[in-house]
Amino acid sequence: MDAVLPTFADVEDAAARIAGRAVFTPLVWSPGLSERLGRPVVLKLETLQRTGTFKFRGALTFLDRIGPPRRVAGVVAYSSGNHAQGVAAAARLFGVPATIVMPADAPAVKLARTRALGAEVVLYDRATESREEIGAALAAERGLTLVPPYDHPWTISGQGTVGLEIARQARARGIDLEAVVVPCGGGGLTAGIALALEAEAPATRVFAAEPAGFDDHARSFAAGERVANDPSAETICDALMAPAPGEVTFEITRRLVAGGLVVGDDEVRSAMAFAFGELKVVAEPGGAAALAAALEDRVPGSGPMAVVISGGNVDPALFAEVIGEG
Amino acid sequence: MDAVLPTFADVEDAAARIAGRAVFTPLVWSPGLSERLGRPVVLKLETLQRTGTFKFRGALTFLDRIGPPRRVAGVVAYSSGNHAQGVAAAARLFGVPATIVMPADAPAVKLARTRALGAEVVLYDRATESREEIGAALAAERGLTLVPPYDHPWTISGQGTVGLEIARQARARGIDLEAVVVPCGGGGLTAGIALALEAEAPATRVFAAEPAGFDDHARSFAAGERVANDPSAETICDALMAPAPGEVTFEITRRLVAGGLVVGDDEVRSAMAFAFGELKVVAEPGGAAALAAALEDRVPGSGPMAVVISGGNVDPALFAEVIGEG
Repeated sequence: MDAVLPTFADVEDAAARIAGRAVFTPLVWSPGLSERLGRPVVLKLETLQRTGTFKFRGALTFLDRIGPPRRVAGVVAYSSGNHAQGVAAAARLFGVPATIVMPADAPAVKLARTRALGAEVVLYDRATESREEIGAALAAERGLTLVPPYDHPWTISGQGTVGLEIARQARARGIDLEAVVVPCGGGGLTAGIALALEAEAPATRVFAAEPAGFDDHARSFAAGERVANDPSAETICDALMAPAPGEVTFEITRRLVAGGLVVGDDEVRSAMAFAFGELKVVAEPGGAAALAAALEDRVPGSGPMAVVISGGNVDPALFAEVIGEG
Repeated sequence: MDAVLPTFADVEDAAARIAGRAVFTPLVWSPGLSERLGRPVVLKLETLQRTGTFKFRGALTFLDRIGPPRRVAGVVAYSSGNHAQGVAAAARLFGVPATIVMPADAPAVKLARTRALGAEVVLYDRATESREEIGAALAAERGLTLVPPYDHPWTISGQGTVGLEIARQARARGIDLEAVVVPCGGGGLTAGIALALEAEAPATRVFAAEPAGFDDHARSFAAGERVANDPSAETICDALMAPAPGEVTFEITRRLVAGGLVVGDDEVRSAMAFAFGELKVVAEPGGAAALAAALEDRVPGSGPMAVVISGGNVDPALFAEVIGEG
C-alpha cells in the first residue's frame, strides 16, 4: 500500500477551505432517542448539508485543492447520486463544468437534482458497464479531472470535517462521546471522521454501520484485509453500495475504527420511519444506516453516542411506502 | 386590558427554567433557500424540539412556575395536539398527571403521541362542544391547574425562548437579521419571539404567518383591535386554528409585530413538499406557514431572514399526499 494517507492537518485544512461554503451542520440532542436507548444521544444532521448529504464537503475540498488550471477544464465523477450532487454543486460554485456518470436505475430524485445543479449526466447500465471505465474515458477525451467518490486523501479529509465538527460541538457542550456511529459505503466518511476523532477525541470509538450484503468493512476488519462484496448483492441503501473498502480509506479505518455494525433493509426502513415520526428528519436509506444500528441496540457501551444521519435524498414514493402510506 | 404582560426578564427566566430539559434547537443556514430567495436565510428548527414542536417550552415553563403544591394535583389542557403533547411531556418530566381535552378529529398522530406520553385524553366534538368549558369543568372537579395554550404570560415567556435563541445564535455568527417570520395561531410564539427580539435585536422585524381564513392577526393589526375568525373557516393548518388573537398576546404583537402574512393551503402544501425535498425537514402544515410565506416572497426586505419551522407532527397519510404519493 503506497497511497499517500491524509492526516489530521489535511482535515483542518479542508475545514478552512469549506468554511462559509458548506453548512456547519448541527449536532442535536435527541431526548426521545436518549430515553429510548438509555444513553445520551446526539444526532449529526448531514441531511441539512448543501445537496442534502455530506458528499458536498469532500467534493468541494477536492475541487478547491486541484487549483484553477485543472479545475477550469471541468470535472467528471461517477456516483449513484449523492457524490454526483456534491460534485455538481461544488463545480457550480466554482463556475466550472461537471459531467456525472450515473446508473440508469439511480433514484429519480438524485438524477433530477444532479441535472438541476447544472451537470451533464451520462447514464450507464450497472449490470453490463463499468462506471470507472466510462469515467476514465470521459476524463481522457475531454481533459476532465476525475473527482473520486471516496478513495482519495482530499475527499477523505473533506468528509473528515464532519468529525472535526462533531468533536468540537460535543466538547463545547461538555459531552464526552463514547461512540460515533457512521453510515459506511466505500469508507470515506468513516475514515475522515475517525481521523478527526483520533486527534480531537481519541477516547471516542467510531463504528461503521453497513447494510447486510454490503458489510465489507465488518468482514474486512475480521479478515485483516480488504474483502469485496458479492457483486449480486442488493440493498435498499443505494448510497452505500460500494464494491469493497477503498484502499486509502481502509488503511485508516482498519487502524481507527472499533467495528462494523450490520443492519438489514427492514431495520433501515424502520429507522427511516422513526426519523420521520419521532425526529422529524428526512433520511434516505443509506443515511439512516447508523440510526438503524443505534435503534437495534447494536452499538456497544452505554455512554454518550453521536449518530450521523448522512443523507436525505430519497424518492417520495419510497418515502411514502416506508412511512406506511405507499 | 388589565392582564399582566410578560417582560423580557420573564423570557430570560423561562430560558433558565427550561435549560437542559428543552432542546436548544439549531438555527441552520439554508444555502438553497438563500439562493432561491436572493437573501440570506436561516431556519429555526423547532421540529427538533422535544415533542416535535415549540409548545413544550411554554408548557414546561408554566408547570415549573406553578410550583409543587399545585403541580402535584395535576394539570389539564385543551389543544388540537401540539400543546397537548407539550403539556403531557412536561407533566411526565415532573411526574404529575396530565389530562388533555382534544378534538375528536385531531390528527391521529397527535392523539397517539399525547397518549404515549402518559396523558389521559378526553375527546370533544369541535362543532358542538366548548373545549374551554370542558377544561374548566375538569379543572374544578379534579383540582387540576389549567395550562393555557397561548394567552398567559408564563406560556408566552416560554415560547419567547425561541426568540432569545434566534437572537443569540444569529449574533454569534455575525448575522444581522432583518426579519423573523413565525407561524401564528393564537399568537403565543409570535408574541414571545417579538418580546425577546425587542430586547436583543430591536432592529429585527417580526412577521406573523397565518393561514387564509385564520388571518385574525393580519386583520386585527389593520383594525387596531382583536378581530375573530369566521367560526366556519377551515384550513389544513390544524395547529393554527385559534378563534382570535389572545388578549395578552395581542397587547404584545400589536406593538411589536411588523405585519401579518397570509398563506393559502396550497402554498402550505408546497412549502411542506419543499421542506421534504430540499431541506430534508419534516414540517406539519402549521409548522410550514412561515416557510410558505417566505417561498411566496411575501416577506418584505432583502436582508437576512430567519424562518421558524414550528412543528413536525403530521399524519403519514397527509405527508405522503403532500409529497405527491397520496
